[in-house]
Amino acid sequence: MILEGKHERSIRRTPDGAGVCILDQRKLPWEVKWVELRSAGEAAVAIRDMWTRGAPMIGATAAYGLAMALAVDARDDALAAGYDLLVETRPTAINLRWALDAVRDAVAGLPVEARAEAAFAKADAIADEDAGLCRSIGEHGLELLRDLHARHPDRPLNILTHCNAGWLATVDYGTATAPIYLAHDAGIPVHVWVDETRPRNQGALLTAFELRNHGVPHTVIADNAGGLLMMKGQVDAVLVGTDRVTANGDVCNKIGTYLKALAAFDNDVPFYVALPYTTFDPNTASGADIPIEERDPAELTLLSDGIATVRVTESPAANPAFDVTPARLVTGYITERGVLDRI
Amino acid sequence: MILEGKHERSIRRTPDGAGVCILDQRKLPWEVKWVELRSAGEAAVAIRDMWTRGAPMIGATAAYGLAMALAVDARDDALAAGYDLLVETRPTAINLRWALDAVRDAVAGLPVEARAEAAFAKADAIADEDAGLCRSIGEHGLELLRDLHARHPDRPLNILTHCNAGWLATVDYGTATAPIYLAHDAGIPVHVWVDETRPRNQGALLTAFELRNHGVPHTVIADNAGGLLMMKGQVDAVLVGTDRVTANGDVCNKIGTYLKALAAFDNDVPFYVALPYTTFDPNTASGADIPIEERDPAELTLLSDGIATVRVTESPAANPAFDVTPARLVTGYITERGVLDRI
Repeated sequence: MILEGKHERSIRRTPDGAGVCILDQRKLPWEVKWVELRSAGEAAVAIRDMWTRGAPMIGATAAYGLAMALAVDARDDALAAGYDLLVETRPTAINLRWALDAVRDAVAGLPVEARAEAAFAKADAIADEDAGLCRSIGEHGLELLRDLHARHPDRPLNILTHCNAGWLATVDYGTATAPIYLAHDAGIPVHVWVDETRPRNQGALLTAFELRNHGVPHTVIADNAGGLLMMKGQVDAVLVGTDRVTANGDVCNKIGTYLKALAAFDNDVPFYVALPYTTFDPNTASGADIPIEERDPAELTLLSDGIATVRVTESPAANPAFDVTPARLVTGYITERGVLDRI
Repeated sequence: MILEGKHERSIRRTPDGAGVCILDQRKLPWEVKWVELRSAGEAAVAIRDMWTRGAPMIGATAAYGLAMALAVDARDDALAAGYDLLVETRPTAINLRWALDAVRDAVAGLPVEARAEAAFAKADAIADEDAGLCRSIGEHGLELLRDLHARHPDRPLNILTHCNAGWLATVDYGTATAPIYLAHDAGIPVHVWVDETRPRNQGALLTAFELRNHGVPHTVIADNAGGLLMMKGQVDAVLVGTDRVTANGDVCNKIGTYLKALAAFDNDVPFYVALPYTTFDPNTASGADIPIEERDPAELTLLSDGIATVRVTESPAANPAFDVTPARLVTGYITERGVLDRI
């Protein structure tokens, strides 16, 4: 990732190695602020209050948080207490538990005095592994984008994306954005249509912020506009992330993804889903089995930019957070193992 | 229409008959304010500065404006000057020219002293005719909704609509909303999913305001949500208005309509377009021949509620205003002549 002209990662150790720095996402893009987390308690607050978000970033932050707990007291009771504190911050984030288990398993058999260092090493490994997975997704996706661009070498390659599946949600590169960054860096002239992504506007706020910082040409559009753009031949591929892919290949992702998949299918535009293979959930048969989170209607009815807040409506509102894109609409799954037709 | 508990029309003569009252739509729904227009100049400002909007309302306001011009001076020069003043307010609104032509033709052959009264009578007739057309659309649509409700008589009938094709854009009833109001008044338990309709939010602002005033149960949703709702069986029909239907039945309407039509088709949800037959344009072969208006990106990048303004993004934005729904996705066209499979 590139932020304000510098190569960075979304999470990194402080210079003294005893804490971590993360971007405070609550005020992005209006204010870019790194915050230091220097205790398990601070890491827990950062996760619970959404200073950071995205499964990989939550996992890495929690792993460092547990290491920080062990730096204070590495005995078994303290290990268990740190684990419990952190695992309860976002109960539904499966990656959070996975990362905490990994750190605990790495240190449980060690003498107390060796645990903190081993925990930091494991947290580093978790962060490195995530960055590596995203880089692999990017490399496989890059070949796809190279082929698509070769069909129309005389004009920019137009990618449409929805929500934020970028480096703000991962340690580096992002998932859906990884092929875009690598293509841009490889000299392929790529332009991104960024869906606003109502109601939380992660596209207009976060994805646009990432692309601006990386220097990738992009245009924010209303979520309503993608169908027309595809009909007019102005989209070469749709590229999105996902929260979960079920056994039959159905894709659970941010609300509105399904509408873009329908438009892509109707206009012969390829529709790709980028994911680390761990997001594949073979234990859920199909998208119909996924309960859809219903979030606070105020996310729709009020809009703030950190300075002011405006009312969108005074009527009742509903706010389902995810939808399901049937596997039949998916052209391919871009994973660290390659691009798969079926998953 | 019902506004604050009273039956009203969107435009009506002042008590002395010499002017008209319209709702100032610029601050709706946050402020409900009737304004009196007492001269052709005031009518021109109201149209040009969008105190009122929607082809039928623009036509009726212009017709009354020309009558008001003639009440001051009804000689040929004044008639021509009033016509010119009003016709230039919204150059692309075809209904504006039609209404002004109708008033001019009605008075041109009359003695000067009889012209103003005849012009007001013609303007009244134009307003009455529009209300009658919308009522007929409502009556034909009501039978459709009655049949749909009979399939699931044990639960409310769920209609999804996009943008505002309601009485704020017409003299009364609206087009897409007319069947909804008549169904509600007939005791059919109807619930409306109201698309927010980014970027100008006409659904969240205007359609929700209308439904609130009429007492029709409704829920505002992000434009992204409709696909999921249809997949979950929570939408019985989609009902929208249109700006133009081409010779082959393609429907030009507010951006995002096409995405809802795709989702309706994918989930066997009937998709209806309500229109007065005059909106049918046999001289345009298909939707591909319609130039799409590209509006100011600031409509997307800034959002105001009349008190405060917030930034949506600092990136470049694009703002196409309309899209085209292919005829193959349309279940029927609800017109004053009946519900047509093909137009």
